[in-house]
Amino acid sequence: MITFDLFTTIDALGTFAFAVSGATAAIRSRYDIFGILVLAFVTAIGGGTTRDLLIGNTPVNWLTDTLTIWSIVAGFLFGLLLHRKIGKWEGWFFFFDAVGLGVFTVTGVQIGLQAGMGIGISVALGAVTGCFGGVIRDVLAATKPLIFRKEIYASASVIGGLLYIMIVEFGESIIVAQITAIAAVLFIRFIAVHYKLELPKIN
Amino acid sequence: MITFDLFTTIDALGTFAFAVSGATAAIRSRYDIFGILVLAFVTAIGGGTTRDLLIGNTPVNWLTDTLTIWSIVAGFLFGLLLHRKIGKWEGWFFFFDAVGLGVFTVTGVQIGLQAGMGIGISVALGAVTGCFGGVIRDVLAATKPLIFRKEIYASASVIGGLLYIMIVEFGESIIVAQITAIAAVLFIRFIAVHYKLELPKIN
Amino acid sequence: MITFDLFTTIDALGTFAFAVSGATAAIRSRYDIFGILVLAFVTAIGGGTTRDLLIGNTPVNWLTDTLTIWSIVAGFLFGLLLHRKIGKWEGWFFFFDAVGLGVFTVTGVQIGLQAGMGIGISVALGAVTGCFGGVIRDVLAATKPLIFRKEIYASASVIGGLLYIMIVEFGESIIVAQITAIAAVLFIRFIAVHYKLELPKIN
Repeated sequence: MITFDLFTTIDALGTFAFAVSGATAAIRSRYDIFGILVLAFVTAIGGGTTRDLLIGNTPVNWLTDTLTIWSIVAGFLFGLLLHRKIGKWEGWFFFFDAVGLGVFTVTGVQIGLQAGMGIGISVALGAVTGCFGGVIRDVLAATKPLIFRKEIYASASVIGGLLYIMIVEFGESIIVAQITAIAAVLFIRFIAVHYKLELPKIN
Repeated sequence: MITFDLFTTIDALGTFAFAVSGATAAIRSRYDIFGILVLAFVTAIGGGTTRDLLIGNTPVNWLTDTLTIWSIVAGFLFGLLLHRKIGKWEGWFFFFDAVGLGVFTVTGVQIGLQAGMGIGISVALGAVTGCFGGVIRDVLAATKPLIFRKEIYASASVIGGLLYIMIVEFGESIIVAQITAIAAVLFIRFIAVHYKLELPKIN
Repeated sequence: MITFDLFTTIDALGTFAFAVSGATAAIRSRYDIFGILVLAFVTAIGGGTTRDLLIGNTPVNWLTDTLTIWSIVAGFLFGLLLHRKIGKWEGWFFFFDAVGLGVFTVTGVQIGLQAGMGIGISVALGAVTGCFGGVIRDVLAATKPLIFRKEIYASASVIGGLLYIMIVEFGESIIVAQITAIAAVLFIRFIAVHYKLELPKIN
């Protein structure tokens, strides 16, 4: 079961990365230790929880998932102890965050398909899983949600989700689809940030 | 089934109108194309989704409702292409939005009654269905929810919901109750906006 | 059933106090009568509703709980009529709010344990029940959630929840655990506010 373990490990890394980004946002908003912990938590589980509530998957999964809890606590502590050096670590955070986006996208698409949803809705559930934690983080930090304004983010998730479904439809194994979709999200995010690509705005 | 089709058509118009208002709010907040789409979506489905989550109606209905999805996409495109001319279209938007408020109120009350709720709670669920999409829209656009401050809006929904229940109790057909309640919401909204009526504030 | 009645009475007082705090926040944000009612409602039921949604306890309990509804209406009217004198009543509000925090913490922990959750998650569900109504209140009032910044609040809930579980584990009766946990939350809140204790922030 090496493939499953690989995916579990990547999933935990994604959770960890999202927790770090939540902790960082809370520190910037001058929240206390508790607020930092809550934002780490909410950022990491917000997307999956929203998806689970929408499709009626309750109790939501993190209530019984110890690895998720510890990944969040680790992300919280990491954000807390190293926030001053975050500038130096920026490349790592970008990488973790993009991996998390890719993994959560794939998880969301898979769960949507398993729940009998159509392709469009499953891709949307993938994007909700990947992106909504960050939206809740920004609402609780009382800032305009970044995702609606910054470089291509949700679009990377949508493309990754479509790719996953196409590859599975073509008869490839789940693991090939997973790795390809995650790699595509990573690649799109890298290109978008490197070249400062943004979706058009309306004047 | 002309009556059912009529209601379905009005429902789609209401969804469309709410999607336009979400898209407009996102454009004003300088969100990108994706943010505009998300706000159109969330405004249109936010009220019904909140209601469905509260009463345990999952998976929530838009996950399997193609007409809702396309109504939202149409509202998104309409808001995107015509936002500069929105001033000229204001009367139409007001009309669509009021129809949507009336239709969603009636839908919410009906679903509450079907789920075995009492009259007061069913009326409240109607108001949640009609109003909560706008509340979520304003939270995501990082502005104070308009509905808590502007001319009589939720009150129109509450009166429409009570009227619907009264007419059904008096033995009239569902369709009479639906049309009367929607007309009442339209009428109250028209009077409120025309005479700039507001609920009292506290000093 | 005097003990049950005692707990029901305290629970209603907690609901009342949270409704007052929601109404007050809405008045400060210059919301109209309807907005004040909604914030009273959302503050009082937000924590329990979030908990119920997470564990799949739907329809959420206040939909069929008349006492909760009337406690909220009473809190709304109280906040409305007496908001100018709130300065004089501050001690009472602090007391009510702390009782509510304690009671809701205990309710949340109990429901978590009944749903088969582990100790850590049950304590977290207690804190969600006690604190999340205030978080939603602050989001809807468009202010940074107070709880993430002010004196020890959620920590009091966490300590109360742990104490409740420890006492039940030691074989004491539920009612002893309930009263001790609520008293502990009250005591911690009193000490924290009296001595202006805060959790550390990160520079």
